[in-house]
Amino acid sequence: MSMEEAVNLDERFAQFTDQWSPKAIARLNDYEVKLVRVEGEFVWHDHPDTDELFLVLDGELVIQLRDRDVTLHRGELFVVPRGVEHCPTAAEETLVLLIEPRGTPNTGDAGGELTTEPIEI
Amino acid sequence: MSMEEAVNLDERFAQFTDQWSPKAIARLNDYEVKLVRVEGEFVWHDHPDTDELFLVLDGELVIQLRDRDVTLHRGELFVVPRGVEHCPTAAEETLVLLIEPRGTPNTGDAGGELTTEPIEI
Repeated sequence: MSMEEAVNLDERFAQFTDQWSPKAIARLNDYEVKLVRVEGEFVWHDHPDTDELFLVLDGELVIQLRDRDVTLHRGELFVVPRGVEHCPTAAEETLVLLIEPRGTPNTGDAGGELTTEPIEI
Repeated sequence: MSMEEAVNLDERFAQFTDQWSPKAIARLNDYEVKLVRVEGEFVWHDHPDTDELFLVLDGELVIQLRDRDVTLHRGELFVVPRGVEHCPTAAEETLVLLIEPRGTPNTGDAGGELTTEPIEI
């Protein structure tokens, strides 16, 4: 993860194919910028201590909330407030940029087999 | 600035035409996500207390640093580290997404006539 150069998002996405496994591409103070490929349904969870930013770069992401769904197309962002349960889903592979504090677990309070640490690329 | 819905970046850019005047479109904890139209040369400055993220959404941004230039095309991002002097420039109008802590002055330590508070849209 070089911070010395411009980071090209397409080039970084080309470096991995696995889904639901965020890759860290930059840091902003104690926050991490991550790229993730998603498809299918994730797991319901929340982050008790932080908001989480989703920006869709390609595809369509549906962030299920308990009271409604928020649909994000390419070029759309949404911030899930701290403590709000959510479950991201995507009918087809979708490319997402995430920003949240470093160390925020991807599965939040839920844990489980999808829990993973971001790899720096 | 509604946090209840998806934020469409193109639609938000369509709401303003002025340059070098960031508009706040979302919050992430104590950080602000801002959109700005830039053209020409800004002012040399630094932010002593925070990094600053630039993501180019359209056009080409050259972030001059004292020892080199970092050129960002559409879909490229760069984080200017805290305390590093920089001067953004763009030969033609360029659309940029910025993220930094709320209250970070756009002209950093330099001040001057280009200093402005972000307006929420």
